[in-house]
Amino acid sequence: MPEQYRTEQDTLGQVLVPQSAYYGAQTQRAVDNFQISGIRLPRSFIKAQGVIKASAAATNMKLNMLQNDIGSAIIEAAEEVIDGHWDGHFVVDVYQAGAGTSQNMNANEIIAKRASEILTGSSASSHVHANDHVNMAQSTNDTFPAALHIAAVENITQSLLPAIGQLQQELEKKSEELMSVLKSGRTHLHDAVPMRLGQEFAGYAGTIKGMYQQIEDTLEPLYEIGLGGNAIGTVINTHPDYPQTAIAEVSHRTNFPFRAPQSTFSYMQNRNAAINTMLAMKELAIHLIKITSDLRLLASGPRTGLAEIALPSVQPGSSIMPGKVNPAILEMTHMVCCQVIGFETAIATAGIASQLEINVMMPVIAYTLLESIELLSNALPTLTTKCITGIQANQDTCNYWMESSLSLVTGLSPILGYDLSSQIGKEADERNIAIKQVLQEKGLLNEQTEKAIDPQALI
Amino acid sequence: MPEQYRTEQDTLGQVLVPQSAYYGAQTQRAVDNFQISGIRLPRSFIKAQGVIKASAAATNMKLNMLQNDIGSAIIEAAEEVIDGHWDGHFVVDVYQAGAGTSQNMNANEIIAKRASEILTGSSASSHVHANDHVNMAQSTNDTFPAALHIAAVENITQSLLPAIGQLQQELEKKSEELMSVLKSGRTHLHDAVPMRLGQEFAGYAGTIKGMYQQIEDTLEPLYEIGLGGNAIGTVINTHPDYPQTAIAEVSHRTNFPFRAPQSTFSYMQNRNAAINTMLAMKELAIHLIKITSDLRLLASGPRTGLAEIALPSVQPGSSIMPGKVNPAILEMTHMVCCQVIGFETAIATAGIASQLEINVMMPVIAYTLLESIELLSNALPTLTTKCITGIQANQDTCNYWMESSLSLVTGLSPILGYDLSSQIGKEADERNIAIKQVLQEKGLLNEQTEKAIDPQALI
Amino acid sequence: MPEQYRTEQDTLGQVLVPQSAYYGAQTQRAVDNFQISGIRLPRSFIKAQGVIKASAAATNMKLNMLQNDIGSAIIEAAEEVIDGHWDGHFVVDVYQAGAGTSQNMNANEIIAKRASEILTGSSASSHVHANDHVNMAQSTNDTFPAALHIAAVENITQSLLPAIGQLQQELEKKSEELMSVLKSGRTHLHDAVPMRLGQEFAGYAGTIKGMYQQIEDTLEPLYEIGLGGNAIGTVINTHPDYPQTAIAEVSHRTNFPFRAPQSTFSYMQNRNAAINTMLAMKELAIHLIKITSDLRLLASGPRTGLAEIALPSVQPGSSIMPGKVNPAILEMTHMVCCQVIGFETAIATAGIASQLEINVMMPVIAYTLLESIELLSNALPTLTTKCITGIQANQDTCNYWMESSLSLVTGLSPILGYDLSSQIGKEADERNIAIKQVLQEKGLLNEQTEKAIDPQALI
Amino acid sequence: MPEQYRTEQDTLGQVLVPQSAYYGAQTQRAVDNFQISGIRLPRSFIKAQGVIKASAAATNMKLNMLQNDIGSAIIEAAEEVIDGHWDGHFVVDVYQAGAGTSQNMNANEIIAKRASEILTGSSASSHVHANDHVNMAQSTNDTFPAALHIAAVENITQSLLPAIGQLQQELEKKSEELMSVLKSGRTHLHDAVPMRLGQEFAGYAGTIKGMYQQIEDTLEPLYEIGLGGNAIGTVINTHPDYPQTAIAEVSHRTNFPFRAPQSTFSYMQNRNAAINTMLAMKELAIHLIKITSDLRLLASGPRTGLAEIALPSVQPGSSIMPGKVNPAILEMTHMVCCQVIGFETAIATAGIASQLEINVMMPVIAYTLLESIELLSNALPTLTTKCITGIQANQDTCNYWMESSLSLVTGLSPILGYDLSSQIGKEADERNIAIKQVLQEKGLLNEQTEKAIDPQALI
Repeated sequence: MPEQYRTEQDTLGQVLVPQSAYYGAQTQRAVDNFQISGIRLPRSFIKAQGVIKASAAATNMKLNMLQNDIGSAIIEAAEEVIDGHWDGHFVVDVYQAGAGTSQNMNANEIIAKRASEILTGSSASSHVHANDHVNMAQSTNDTFPAALHIAAVENITQSLLPAIGQLQQELEKKSEELMSVLKSGRTHLHDAVPMRLGQEFAGYAGTIKGMYQQIEDTLEPLYEIGLGGNAIGTVINTHPDYPQTAIAEVSHRTNFPFRAPQSTFSYMQNRNAAINTMLAMKELAIHLIKITSDLRLLASGPRTGLAEIALPSVQPGSSIMPGKVNPAILEMTHMVCCQVIGFETAIATAGIASQLEINVMMPVIAYTLLESIELLSNALPTLTTKCITGIQANQDTCNYWMESSLSLVTGLSPILGYDLSSQIGKEADERNIAIKQVLQEKGLLNEQTEKAIDPQALI
Repeated sequence: MPEQYRTEQDTLGQVLVPQSAYYGAQTQRAVDNFQISGIRLPRSFIKAQGVIKASAAATNMKLNMLQNDIGSAIIEAAEEVIDGHWDGHFVVDVYQAGAGTSQNMNANEIIAKRASEILTGSSASSHVHANDHVNMAQSTNDTFPAALHIAAVENITQSLLPAIGQLQQELEKKSEELMSVLKSGRTHLHDAVPMRLGQEFAGYAGTIKGMYQQIEDTLEPLYEIGLGGNAIGTVINTHPDYPQTAIAEVSHRTNFPFRAPQSTFSYMQNRNAAINTMLAMKELAIHLIKITSDLRLLASGPRTGLAEIALPSVQPGSSIMPGKVNPAILEMTHMVCCQVIGFETAIATAGIASQLEINVMMPVIAYTLLESIELLSNALPTLTTKCITGIQANQDTCNYWMESSLSLVTGLSPILGYDLSSQIGKEADERNIAIKQVLQEKGLLNEQTEKAIDPQALI
Repeated sequence: MPEQYRTEQDTLGQVLVPQSAYYGAQTQRAVDNFQISGIRLPRSFIKAQGVIKASAAATNMKLNMLQNDIGSAIIEAAEEVIDGHWDGHFVVDVYQAGAGTSQNMNANEIIAKRASEILTGSSASSHVHANDHVNMAQSTNDTFPAALHIAAVENITQSLLPAIGQLQQELEKKSEELMSVLKSGRTHLHDAVPMRLGQEFAGYAGTIKGMYQQIEDTLEPLYEIGLGGNAIGTVINTHPDYPQTAIAEVSHRTNFPFRAPQSTFSYMQNRNAAINTMLAMKELAIHLIKITSDLRLLASGPRTGLAEIALPSVQPGSSIMPGKVNPAILEMTHMVCCQVIGFETAIATAGIASQLEINVMMPVIAYTLLESIELLSNALPTLTTKCITGIQANQDTCNYWMESSLSLVTGLSPILGYDLSSQIGKEADERNIAIKQVLQEKGLLNEQTEKAIDPQALI
Repeated sequence: MPEQYRTEQDTLGQVLVPQSAYYGAQTQRAVDNFQISGIRLPRSFIKAQGVIKASAAATNMKLNMLQNDIGSAIIEAAEEVIDGHWDGHFVVDVYQAGAGTSQNMNANEIIAKRASEILTGSSASSHVHANDHVNMAQSTNDTFPAALHIAAVENITQSLLPAIGQLQQELEKKSEELMSVLKSGRTHLHDAVPMRLGQEFAGYAGTIKGMYQQIEDTLEPLYEIGLGGNAIGTVINTHPDYPQTAIAEVSHRTNFPFRAPQSTFSYMQNRNAAINTMLAMKELAIHLIKITSDLRLLASGPRTGLAEIALPSVQPGSSIMPGKVNPAILEMTHMVCCQVIGFETAIATAGIASQLEINVMMPVIAYTLLESIELLSNALPTLTTKCITGIQANQDTCNYWMESSLSLVTGLSPILGYDLSSQIGKEADERNIAIKQVLQEKGLLNEQTEKAIDPQALI
């Protein structure tokens, strides 16, 4: 059965809109204009748009700017948006009109039509106006970044931070578990002094703990939402109590401590908080690449590598080499990090494009920020539960490397001095013999020197 | 009705797979392991996988490595994959096992099961083996990059280059159309000597023409596909004639001149051609940002900006400011470019991670490369048809700015010298009067100097 | 007169060293090996190396690990390094041995030779040993990052933060000064509602204020210095009280609150604090590009641009166009920001290369971090004093644009609704007439609507 | 003796210039304005400026635009600049006036003063004018990029390409030398099928060969120099034959085939060729990081790593661990690559800032491009001669790993099938025994299977 169309009108003229669509003319124009990626802004963003529309209506009613029946219907429709009932009608491509005007109008049009239907029983009614009522006291320019902040705060708080925290705890647990395993340290990939395997993991845990703090710190700037600043920060066509009331309403609906920006005009001009959050995720990605690369190196083998640890097998690793099992979870995490680092570049490039009263690159900023949070929030629990938790030490191998390490000669330094110790190490290397043997041949082996090259004494 | 499951087996044990799925155990493990983005590799990649599987089977039959009935069934199944019949069964997340083993096994498993069904009439049959038959003479490591190259070549040739070419032609046409419009040049956003509006567009057209050439040049390295190199480039378990025959088969099926790599081992170690292509798209993105930023600046207004050109109106531009129409198509293009630049960083970060015989980051490289091609291929025709084509000059405004420009004083330089000309310009600026008036007051106005500051004479 | 050479010895054999050089064999090898850029690590880094060497000697004396005469001589020599007396003998290229071993040995060798000279009166003496005495209880791996942190803390505290603070204050002052100037806002470079010029600057000031806070926050992680962790974090060949005592000594000598790392092993593995600081400077650079681009746009002209503000003239702007004056200071700042953003990429690329117990990319991290601080510390005061301070408003031009703006129609929205207001705006645009005239023609001009489009009422 | 000053004059007023300086007022203003980095544009750039000034004067004389005595004196002075006699008088910071106006005026002023001196015998003479004579027919906007192209072409041709070619040849030679050494391949850092060490190096050589071609290809766009386009591409105040004549003159003086740009206006608007060259160097850097990381991994040890190859010892590697020798040359190269990748970001960020008729970021583009060429040109010969040439194989170690590799089971696949082969491999792994033993226990060991797992047969 072919789709039926109705005719809608906006400033630029008439537009055909699918009969079943709750959106209107402006959304339809955006659909027609932007056939780019097929990707939409995510659920969390749409939900935040619903929160803002409901909060705005509640505020406007409270301030006697909006009739109660219309306001109540808007709130009811907006709550349906929050609950995800209308997700299928949010149809605008991520790569859309600058600043996200189409995205805002998509919400306004859906809610207006649905609220009209609630009020009149007829979806054909235009009793509630997308701009005059649903968007009252708002602009794309103040609500789009607010929606981004709300969505980011929710996703960071409920998904990303718990995922980081879980990883940190598992690394700490693994660190304790592996603290008794002695091994050789390696710097420059060359023999270094001995250490405990658990200390290596303590380093990873410490890094992730630091990143938990840093990601958490990005919430403060994200709590700033400039509702009521509307077009350029000058609070136009809006009741003077609107900003604080609307922001309080959002806080009430979300249980997060949103507040007005320290500098309204800075908030309108740039996407500082988004950039700041993205930079912190870039740093997390940098460190995760280090950790996952280390683990692959330590687990290299099973026969032709360091093989100090064994990773859980999660799937066969080769279509041609039978029996091969690869560090797939670590590799997936590394790939996610490459993408997150790429997204930071995208946001930085978009951030540079702020111009005068606005940064019109907001849709791509929103997409890449929320997608980065999503990717990390999904990858980290996978990393933790399917890899970190199951890591086991190959104690014998660790011990073998440690006993072989030429760097045990370091223990001789306080006794024999750096120069003589160097000569001993060099000779052991060149003749491929044990340090102890060199000591013996040189008549330097005694209780003190023997103890000095005992790995246990060097940790 | 709840989904029914069957039990499948691989090296690591048993796995439950949906009854209706044509994929098998290894794919199912990947689905279970990688719940990350919900994004799959695109149609063009799956199609290229089908081309490779069909070509491999045809080659193995020709070289008497594969029974004819099994080979024929594999080809038939692979051609169904090429045609898109089994897209719904390609279910592995982009962020998956390193090197794309899961992606390759997904194809192998679907084709094996479908070929078995073709041969025996029963989808429960395992007559055709995913590894031993479908993947014969292949490895993920040689087929994944080959699939990427095939998909990229097809998309660049059929979508991206035509889109760039169309943009170039429209810019050239617009350049000719606007060649009679005189205007002031601007350097450092300050008054510069006069020029033609068409010359500005000639610059844009010239830049895009250069990029057409550069993007086209990226095809040469992409034509290299290392089929038969399999795991690490040493052509294991494979007939010596396999590489050249299989590559010829792919060329035949795709009508592109694929060939063996100049250096098989370099091809296995790195993703050079993908990086090279991505870098060219980054340069395209850089130039598109310049061009779209320029056009927004030239079209700034309608009342408070330069307003030298008018863009076609495509949709209302503000939810709060009635009547506003923004340069939405240009902004969308700019956003796409931010993302493409970000994707280049992702690929570079992945490219650095090559290690010994392979770069295991291939899935994220494939995704970002193909997505970049897709975004640009969709954005550019939109830019061309919905914006460039409809650009109109505001001749009066162009003329107004040109006549006002203090830089007309440049014409005096050969006559009066740089120093005196500077003084005249400075005085005109400070007193906010015309250059001609300064000349007159100084007794320097004559036929020669009057002509020297005539914009027409300066172009 | 040709340079005389002396022969020095290290583990690898003999080396010729210039007679006058205070450095020794290992430094000389580094000079021979690394003829790359001709750039050395900066004064602040060398100074920090001196602080560490003096603090280590003082600590080792206190803990009875080092003879008093040798320790005292080392301290005296190290203090000469701190004062810059030996800068000319720090001769190792920035692009040197991984981890900066050569840089550390350069300091050790200079101080050993100089301390020997102090003790014995002869510069030929090798009484004090570079490794056994000067480097006692230290490794490159714990002292190089400590020197970097110390240098960064000093430069941020004494140069960068004051420069940012001065810029913030001048922007705030300028904001107040320009608060009475009314102008048109612009979003998407298109007419937006009216605002105050001072509000635009309030946005800039607010952004810079936020960045002051963020840069200041980077000091906390930089205060962590892991002295005593030495090679890999296990505190080898070192008195157990060394770490806390040495760090306290550094704090005493520098007056900054340095402390032991929260996680010693994380500190050894990565350069977290350096990355964190660099990311904050990247964000500063992003915002500075926005602000300096805005100012160039607002100052565009003098005749062919927006010309809302005038910048101080600092130098002639063209070799061919007489009288041209460009926004040179803003352009210089923008260029510095491009470089800083590039340096962040360099550090991120280096940061990814951490491997097991160490990140050997430390020298390039140190160079780019300190150079970024230096560039910004020099550029910002120039920006502030040679540009921001002298900015003047062109009030008439501001007013002209504001009165023309089609966006004044926004004021009609609450009265006439969005749709009718849009029609009025569109008609004014198409017929190029005033909004007031459209209202009049439509019989809609009355006291209320006239007031609604008065810019004053819209701010 | 205190510096003496003379008074010079420009459009903005009087300036004090050091008595001994050959530059004038505009240079002095730039020195005063830009105390940023202390870095100047390099010798090659100054030389190229001299070439352009000499070529312009010769052309203007030929076209009867310039008196012969003045022209000849300019040429003489410019040739002194080419020869480096006046380098000390090029005093403008890299971070300077947009587009490099100060840099161009620095050359104009030095040459004007020196030419005046040549003509009149007095350095106080202002017989030759910096703008009217030396800069005749030129603008910063056409000469600065031309100087950049000339310098880049010279440095790429004379330094970078030979350095890449030398590296390629040495890698090829090393590849042949190591072709007889058998070893285990590794994918995902896990056991893969056997290969030859020489094949690994063949991959490196192939990659570098490809990069030689790509870097060479960047010369074509660099050969385009837009002399005569002057301010914005419209060839103002200039003889119509000037462009072709001046470009031919430059080609004559440099022996490179410079030519007019395909699109003059594109050339004025952007720095396409510089971006293109920088992107190619970024790709080179990406691959060098891979190769140098691989070599460090293969050389890891001496006792606790893979130790398949030994690198030449170039210097002691640790201040605390005696006898340690690190892969310092490889690490230095990796650091250079981090910086080059950072510089690409700097250029891309600058490239985006093109606006209308010009990209004013040219000085930072010039600096980072030429510095990248310089760093690579110095690092690669060091890498080649101090590392690659001296690499030696540890044949026994290579053989040990190869014989152990579980991936030898791959050879069984064509005989026993993928599934059974997997089981055999898995059992060998779990019980830590040889594949042969599993075969024997399962009664599968026969001539055919024994041969199938012989590494020799698998290469």
